[in-house]
Amino acid sequence: MLTYSFENRGSDSLYEYLYKQIRHDINTGKLVPNEKLPSKRALAKHLNISTVTVENAYSQLLAEGYIYSVPKSGYYVSDIIAEKNISDNEYRNGHGKYDAMATRKTAASNGNKGASDGFFIDFVNNYTAPENFPFTIWTKLMRETMSENKDKLMIKSPSTGIYELRCSIADYLYQFRGINAAPDQIVVGAGTEYLYGLIIQLLGHDKIYAVEDPGYRKISRIYGANRVKCVHIPLDEQGINIEDLEKSEADVVHISPSHHFPTGLVTPVSRRYELLSWACKSEDRYIIEDDYDSEFRLLGKPIPALQSIDVSEKVIYMNTFSKSLSSTIRISYMVLPKSLMERYNRELSFYACTVSNFEQYTLAKFIERGYLEKHINRMRNHYRKVRDDILINMKKHLKEKKGRIMEEDAGLHFLLKVDTKLSDEELVEKAAEKGINISCLSQYYHDRSCAKKNTLIINYSGIRTEDIEQGVKRLFEIF
Amino acid sequence: MLTYSFENRGSDSLYEYLYKQIRHDINTGKLVPNEKLPSKRALAKHLNISTVTVENAYSQLLAEGYIYSVPKSGYYVSDIIAEKNISDNEYRNGHGKYDAMATRKTAASNGNKGASDGFFIDFVNNYTAPENFPFTIWTKLMRETMSENKDKLMIKSPSTGIYELRCSIADYLYQFRGINAAPDQIVVGAGTEYLYGLIIQLLGHDKIYAVEDPGYRKISRIYGANRVKCVHIPLDEQGINIEDLEKSEADVVHISPSHHFPTGLVTPVSRRYELLSWACKSEDRYIIEDDYDSEFRLLGKPIPALQSIDVSEKVIYMNTFSKSLSSTIRISYMVLPKSLMERYNRELSFYACTVSNFEQYTLAKFIERGYLEKHINRMRNHYRKVRDDILINMKKHLKEKKGRIMEEDAGLHFLLKVDTKLSDEELVEKAAEKGINISCLSQYYHDRSCAKKNTLIINYSGIRTEDIEQGVKRLFEIF
Repeated sequence: MLTYSFENRGSDSLYEYLYKQIRHDINTGKLVPNEKLPSKRALAKHLNISTVTVENAYSQLLAEGYIYSVPKSGYYVSDIIAEKNISDNEYRNGHGKYDAMATRKTAASNGNKGASDGFFIDFVNNYTAPENFPFTIWTKLMRETMSENKDKLMIKSPSTGIYELRCSIADYLYQFRGINAAPDQIVVGAGTEYLYGLIIQLLGHDKIYAVEDPGYRKISRIYGANRVKCVHIPLDEQGINIEDLEKSEADVVHISPSHHFPTGLVTPVSRRYELLSWACKSEDRYIIEDDYDSEFRLLGKPIPALQSIDVSEKVIYMNTFSKSLSSTIRISYMVLPKSLMERYNRELSFYACTVSNFEQYTLAKFIERGYLEKHINRMRNHYRKVRDDILINMKKHLKEKKGRIMEEDAGLHFLLKVDTKLSDEELVEKAAEKGINISCLSQYYHDRSCAKKNTLIINYSGIRTEDIEQGVKRLFEIF
Repeated sequence: MLTYSFENRGSDSLYEYLYKQIRHDINTGKLVPNEKLPSKRALAKHLNISTVTVENAYSQLLAEGYIYSVPKSGYYVSDIIAEKNISDNEYRNGHGKYDAMATRKTAASNGNKGASDGFFIDFVNNYTAPENFPFTIWTKLMRETMSENKDKLMIKSPSTGIYELRCSIADYLYQFRGINAAPDQIVVGAGTEYLYGLIIQLLGHDKIYAVEDPGYRKISRIYGANRVKCVHIPLDEQGINIEDLEKSEADVVHISPSHHFPTGLVTPVSRRYELLSWACKSEDRYIIEDDYDSEFRLLGKPIPALQSIDVSEKVIYMNTFSKSLSSTIRISYMVLPKSLMERYNRELSFYACTVSNFEQYTLAKFIERGYLEKHINRMRNHYRKVRDDILINMKKHLKEKKGRIMEEDAGLHFLLKVDTKLSDEELVEKAAEKGINISCLSQYYHDRSCAKKNTLIINYSGIRTEDIEQGVKRLFEIF
């Protein structure tokens, strides 16, 4: 049976250490695909730890896809490589012509469902339906760029992005988010993930980075991949807990105060000032404000961005066009405080900008001529309709079944707390059997022991209205 | 006067340490813009080191733009921030509309000269003239993509790039470089610089990375920005010196064996096998083969890629479309050995692909339908003509003046050794006064003491035929 010594676990909790050990064995091939794992009880007894510890470790592995469960049988090791390369498996014939047709057919037959990988309805992934992307305008502007701006298209973009685009973004931020940012404080890059990497290079690999727990897991994975120390700070009802942040000795805190993912929490102004005050206590401290879906705050008063109330040059503001346009267009940006911008110019401006000139000029025109504003207004109406439809349908079912809808006033997702005896893993699994892709709040916790159970995340950014009635009906059949 | 203790210089040479100390003082503002530096002799005496050491440090600072020299006066600290932000300085009016017109005018008046920043002729920067970019075809394919592939455009690309593009690249590599790479070994990213960052995350921040000396300086800057140890290995007449490589304890070596920049050296097959043999001696060792301009090897037999003779999964092959299409389109790729690809899939495939779907699909069509091949053939003819024109013009002048053309058979640059009493800094400076942007081989050395002096790098990728006669004439007036 799996045998691990817990002596070298350092500051990891027991479950966390066990999770890492098993993951390591899967990654290194010591545990092979489809191998059965010992039952929770047996492994707990064998390692002299509690069953809950094993359960937490297995849950984490399950959530991340390292293992899968077979009802009434147990847990098995996933074929992680095969899963990640499904589309690549169509590669064939030594070195002949690689036939892309097979993939094309698969993609086409999936066409109507978009990114949802065979699911009937997908409450997890973001997806812009083709009818919601402004193809006509975008094509027109792209053609215009290619016919009228040939000279400029061939001139290398500054490291931070072309000037026109940074001007458009500065104007947009001022008008819609009250953010005062000069074009020369803006850095454009191919996605926020890329920009996170630049921030690490800018602030230093020796700094401690704090992230929200629960939170968007990719952020801590990026810190991990860059081998920088990352600590998880629990949230209280106002946002990240300052006392815990102070204790953690973190230098940089990465937060989404306008609309926390996945809880939907909005950090009130008082806590925002506390955060700024925390940052001011040391020269090395900074706040990364990730404003990923502020455009789609559908109800309630917009709260000023942390950046807009910062007079101490402590806030790095980040946003992306992936949410407002399509996640398949890779353009994001950050606003650096002046002092950090100077450091960027000295130390990192040797990097070429990662976004192609063609799309930079097209997007600049799209913003400058007011198309982005119109598009966002149209999408807000669309999302409002989708959300209302989902809520109406859910409320019907909630008359018979116990449950509660939470945090429905901001961004592109809300929470559904359900009353069930099923575990979160079983919920996700049973939903999948019914063609529903869904995730639970507990999957986004680093410290699983604090996780709220049986709370589903209803991300409706990729939902089509025509699927809602059926999708919600199927979902409620599970409980 | 500047005072530095050399006690803590670690493994740095004296000049290197001095260079770093002065750079640090400039970066931190201790040395202010336009401040005069002490004369070489005075500083050498003051610090009790040789004048050559100071000279080397100053040369490096000069080459990197940290200082500038005023003839018959001395060296001064550059205003590095101001220089980097020239175009940004046009930002005006608190928070009104940022007027991009000023930049537009500047860019337009520069139009004919492309990326050359006011120079009459630019032998340093790569630049594709608008008439050489396949605008008609590219626009046609982009429109086709946007009208026929709406569904696919909205579906998130795999982390490694869309399957169609990886198939096209695999076919292309097999046909033109004899490289056997499955589409699922290819990772597409927004520029090689971005891919270097991924490689560091893949192979580890604790590894030692070796680069060529002389070499393309950006590579060591990227390792520096990611805080990984980078060692500089001298070249002998066959490429990177294996003995020095072995002594350096490097794990990973980053080379351009097909056409070294800037010397133009082509590593012969025997040395390639030695390199592979070096890599096989330890599990952690890898070779990064940067094949940045292999398409444009104009004369001589093409040498097989290192990747194509590697049976031990030790070579990471990299290439880019920046050279073959335009540096303003940010699409590069790498071919990973299968074992590293598995590691990528496990550890890094959570990253979104950094290239937009729109350009990935367009490029896939461009390659698949043979347009890339046609374009490269056309560009080879163009570059051959430019190179021949430059050579004819130079040879005329070389009858009267002493000098020698070297390494003219590969890639998009060659070397011109001139017989002059001017220092390399003076050469660059005097050329600039005549509207010529040029660099010297010595600027690409980490260990300046080994640098060959008075050797100009003639990069002709951004030269227009109509400027050649005049440009070469002006250049030869300097010596």
